[in-house]
Amino acid sequence: MRLPPVPPGTLLALSDADAKLPAGQIPAKSELREELDRLTERIDARQRALHAEGTRALLVVLQGRDASGKDGTIRKVFGPLDPLGVTATSFKVPSEWELRHDFLWRVHAAAPPRGSIGIFNRSHYEDVLVVRVRRLASETVWRPRFEQINDFERILIENGTVILKFMLHISREEQRERLQARLEDSEKYWKFNAGDLKERDLWAEYTEAYQETLALTSTALAPWYVVPADEKRVRDVLVARTVAETLERMDPRYPGPPPELEALRKAVAK
Amino acid sequence: MRLPPVPPGTLLALSDADAKLPAGQIPAKSELREELDRLTERIDARQRALHAEGTRALLVVLQGRDASGKDGTIRKVFGPLDPLGVTATSFKVPSEWELRHDFLWRVHAAAPPRGSIGIFNRSHYEDVLVVRVRRLASETVWRPRFEQINDFERILIENGTVILKFMLHISREEQRERLQARLEDSEKYWKFNAGDLKERDLWAEYTEAYQETLALTSTALAPWYVVPADEKRVRDVLVARTVAETLERMDPRYPGPPPELEALRKAVAK
Repeated sequence: MRLPPVPPGTLLALSDADAKLPAGQIPAKSELREELDRLTERIDARQRALHAEGTRALLVVLQGRDASGKDGTIRKVFGPLDPLGVTATSFKVPSEWELRHDFLWRVHAAAPPRGSIGIFNRSHYEDVLVVRVRRLASETVWRPRFEQINDFERILIENGTVILKFMLHISREEQRERLQARLEDSEKYWKFNAGDLKERDLWAEYTEAYQETLALTSTALAPWYVVPADEKRVRDVLVARTVAETLERMDPRYPGPPPELEALRKAVAK
Repeated sequence: MRLPPVPPGTLLALSDADAKLPAGQIPAKSELREELDRLTERIDARQRALHAEGTRALLVVLQGRDASGKDGTIRKVFGPLDPLGVTATSFKVPSEWELRHDFLWRVHAAAPPRGSIGIFNRSHYEDVLVVRVRRLASETVWRPRFEQINDFERILIENGTVILKFMLHISREEQRERLQARLEDSEKYWKFNAGDLKERDLWAEYTEAYQETLALTSTALAPWYVVPADEKRVRDVLVARTVAETLERMDPRYPGPPPELEALRKAVAK
């Protein structure tokens, strides 16, 4: 059970069926829980080394429709990590001041510093998704952004940041259930946003926007992964495995001893 | 086992003996581990409500000498929390650009947004501690800062932020052992900073600076707590209990249902 990167230039179906693993492939719940624990331990070990190394960063971009589980993924996959090594940024509707800058300005400001993991809860991709679907800007504005995004991400990568991008993909039925739950559970009322119903009406338009976005911005350097996200535990394990394996490929190392180690040892002991 | 706030205006001894609980009062290790688990669960439950409520914030300031356990406290007490609701900021030596602003400028920028917990790993208090001891500014500069700090913190408080300040207090002998460990363990080399030895030589000067700082900036609204920090598990439990009880006193509430709940339920179901 491992996520393949979206091949550059490929239009995916993003159908409701794609939001689930095939019936026979879903492990038991207890197995998924144990697997997630093992994976978060692997992430934790590498994150500590990344922090100590202090020369590179990991940026994890999470996108998905309303109620696709972005918050939950952050909590389950990155919750166990040291807060000093993780920054999670939620990109909301831009402020007037943010809108007076190019769309990547506020995003760049939130890029993870060396030695840390940055998580984007929504991101600059909203500027080719909601902006397109809700016609907040004309195509002459948003279409050039695909190339701008690829260039921007390449700049981050060339300066030491590894980028992973996940689209949490849920089915229309699953979204309905989750939105309904937000109207039934008093601890979830606050998550309900009446605007989400309007977004839901634009389901097909978002599908098309996501299809083109993934095709044009999944690159060898900064790949997209489409996560079947109807089953939360499956979603968490798939994201966690990709993150763990990426960190292990980065293979961060603890720095060696300071110069003049013996002299320092004597100085401390005195 | 509960930390009392530092009474305003009181010069504490901050002796080596104060860095430990009295011998008979230290619970067993297994008991401390279980107690910490219970406390972080209490913190987690209230942090979720604080996030949902979205109107108030909690700021936790951590100060202490080198190797006093600031990083470890953050990891153990706040590590289990949702990264979306926590921001940890480490204040390092100010940059040239930061120094061109007043000393509270970069601190204010890092204040926790409503609905979240902010943790300061060092803070604006360095501007009356290291700045004083290392004579980085004259007394005519740093002395007025005590009142400026109290006013600044009161402004945050009046705008919805609750402030807790912890001084992690270790003994001179414990610091020696921890600095030595950083020169023996290859996973800890990176934490060693030769400058820490110079700070250690100024032990008495720092004690005096902390004494006056605590006396002048422990207020009813933003109290200081001195944490006996030689025993790491004791330290974590004491900090966690103070944080848990503070959040419980804040008593954050989940917001009520959105207006027109029934109409929304019908709209989602259709």
